[in-house]
Amino acid sequence: MMNPTSIPDPGSAIEARFLASLQSVLPTQRPIVLHEPLFKGNESSYVQECIDTGWVSSVGKFVDRFERDLAEMTGSRHAVAIVNGTAALHVGLKLAGVATGDEVLVPALSFVATANAVSHCGATPHFVDSSDSNLGLDPQALREYLGIVAERTGDGLRNKSTGRRLAAVVPMHAFGHPVDMDGLLAISRDFSLPIVEDAAESLGSLYHGRHTGTFGICGALSFNGNKIVTTGGGGALLIQDSALAQHAKHITTTAKRPHQWAFFHDEVAWNYRMPNLNAALGCAQLERLDAFVAAKRQLAQRYQMTFANDPDIRFVAEPPGCRSNYWLATVALRHPSIELRDKLLAVANDTGLMVRPAWTLLNKLPMYQACPSAPLTVATQLEGAIINLPSGPAVALGVGS
Amino acid sequence: MMNPTSIPDPGSAIEARFLASLQSVLPTQRPIVLHEPLFKGNESSYVQECIDTGWVSSVGKFVDRFERDLAEMTGSRHAVAIVNGTAALHVGLKLAGVATGDEVLVPALSFVATANAVSHCGATPHFVDSSDSNLGLDPQALREYLGIVAERTGDGLRNKSTGRRLAAVVPMHAFGHPVDMDGLLAISRDFSLPIVEDAAESLGSLYHGRHTGTFGICGALSFNGNKIVTTGGGGALLIQDSALAQHAKHITTTAKRPHQWAFFHDEVAWNYRMPNLNAALGCAQLERLDAFVAAKRQLAQRYQMTFANDPDIRFVAEPPGCRSNYWLATVALRHPSIELRDKLLAVANDTGLMVRPAWTLLNKLPMYQACPSAPLTVATQLEGAIINLPSGPAVALGVGS
Repeated sequence: MMNPTSIPDPGSAIEARFLASLQSVLPTQRPIVLHEPLFKGNESSYVQECIDTGWVSSVGKFVDRFERDLAEMTGSRHAVAIVNGTAALHVGLKLAGVATGDEVLVPALSFVATANAVSHCGATPHFVDSSDSNLGLDPQALREYLGIVAERTGDGLRNKSTGRRLAAVVPMHAFGHPVDMDGLLAISRDFSLPIVEDAAESLGSLYHGRHTGTFGICGALSFNGNKIVTTGGGGALLIQDSALAQHAKHITTTAKRPHQWAFFHDEVAWNYRMPNLNAALGCAQLERLDAFVAAKRQLAQRYQMTFANDPDIRFVAEPPGCRSNYWLATVALRHPSIELRDKLLAVANDTGLMVRPAWTLLNKLPMYQACPSAPLTVATQLEGAIINLPSGPAVALGVGS
Repeated sequence: MMNPTSIPDPGSAIEARFLASLQSVLPTQRPIVLHEPLFKGNESSYVQECIDTGWVSSVGKFVDRFERDLAEMTGSRHAVAIVNGTAALHVGLKLAGVATGDEVLVPALSFVATANAVSHCGATPHFVDSSDSNLGLDPQALREYLGIVAERTGDGLRNKSTGRRLAAVVPMHAFGHPVDMDGLLAISRDFSLPIVEDAAESLGSLYHGRHTGTFGICGALSFNGNKIVTTGGGGALLIQDSALAQHAKHITTTAKRPHQWAFFHDEVAWNYRMPNLNAALGCAQLERLDAFVAAKRQLAQRYQMTFANDPDIRFVAEPPGCRSNYWLATVALRHPSIELRDKLLAVANDTGLMVRPAWTLLNKLPMYQACPSAPLTVATQLEGAIINLPSGPAVALGVGS
């Protein structure tokens, strides 16, 4: 897609330095993937227990335990296991009252699931800018933007141009770095705007000592194979309100009223339950979460030291007052350039060190091009700047030990 | 919910006879559940392979193999593994072109997922009647009904009363008994009405030698824990058209265009993939499918003989020219009565023999009460008549051997 001849050669020095920096941190084996799962605990025995007992499906002790463990580890009052992160976010938006015809404010710099979950509600994503420091939604920019485009009505906040209700805002804790929640909570209060957190990448990340995903009406987690812990495929909602948590469980399990035999379902609902087989894997993985976070933070520190004096590349460190899980360790070009970024991606991937860029900004994707959008100055720069580095638990534990 | 004093005592003789009939077929152990999974093959070793290799998630050899095996065993040109049966039906309806504001013809006598999948498309279920013989959608009643309520327009078939497009019809092969597909295919031709088969319960069932789910635009399977074979939670679409199958794969896996590192997604899509961990379980289960079908058919034959001369209860046998998988062996009261049905359900369940009724008719559920509906004479009778009997593979293999 890029034409190399049109790019002023930034000096192969950058590429060589980037590669040398990675090599100085990482073990010598090749390839090193971006983030592989690690199963060295009770995964086999818990999964085998499901097969031995026949409890692999909709109900079972591992689903209950997974929810309890998650709640305890995150300090959330409730956790509801769900079939995957996209489904969790979909349900979370429903819980926040997002309905057909609404708009939902989401960062343009996010994985496509953030916008798709909005679409699945029949609503329209409305893109907003990100912060250069934590890579997540920028509350200051959002406040200024809402001052211009939004008006408060008896029926909530509205987009003055489209007339549609602005039903919620979805901060996404990118690569495990917590969003500025104080700034966002103030906006939520001032504009009566519900927060649904996309915490898919931030299990183990704390904002001012409190776990990401527990600030909004609810927070969606993901346990996809590339996440800090995995259930194969899976997700969850962290919820503080008991009635809301019960409702989340109800509508993710076909809204069936309990009865010895009768099939009576009392609202339109989903089959979004996490199978017990997957929860079994998750229970074993959660037992390793603290160790994984510690190791990944050590790995991140090594990366940070290595890139400390690089004139062209900065390491993205955890925001002040926060603990990041460093799901994916991240560097950013000081002078954003998609061309240079792609050269660095190529040189590393070609030597067996798997690195990746941030997502294509969501407002550039064909199905979201016509959606409303704030100015995306910072997000556009970040798109041309971000490179995620190998960060898997096996690599991290190897480097840390 | 029932007031026992208002019920004329139908004679405890029926209850005693029903119980004796079940006991004459089933082993003496208690409880005997309705349909438990059986894992005596390669389940453990395939699942362990996922854990050993780390391939538990979105891609992996078991997903590919599961799709190949399914296609081969059903004679379908393509099979796409999906996260569960509801999601498979949702995608199937999308493939058929069902859109917001449409109506979809579905049997009132079905599991709630059949109607929910329609709702998930933003469409409205339109309920139709069932056949007394195979318990599925009745083509003759549907043809007469369409003659009254439908009109052909340049934009397809329309409901004359609501003005909405009648976008598809969803036959559901109840308890594994194939619907009268010849009758339905004729309607599909005559009215230009696409068929999306709900084959959630009929893996292994043939209509005139051809596998259920391969007649319509696509057919949705389910591998929930209570199905003939299970993946914990899971589903699939059987699809004959190659482009459509490719599209199904694309929109169930976030519509990402293949690229070494770039995240470019070209339409609104879902995370509906089946994890490799679940597909591994499924591959081992499919190896047993033929044995399970054979055993369940033998068990059904025993039930059939036992109830052959019962004056009040008839066994529901496979339709002529069909091979049913007898997912759930089924009897029906000759004189339908919810009160009597519930007495029989109680007496069997209380002795540890798990039996269940058919579903509450979908048009009676709060969220679907206002939906359009054909006369449901037969479905209403069947609701008060049907009782499903213990049919699990372990019981069936035990009885058959």
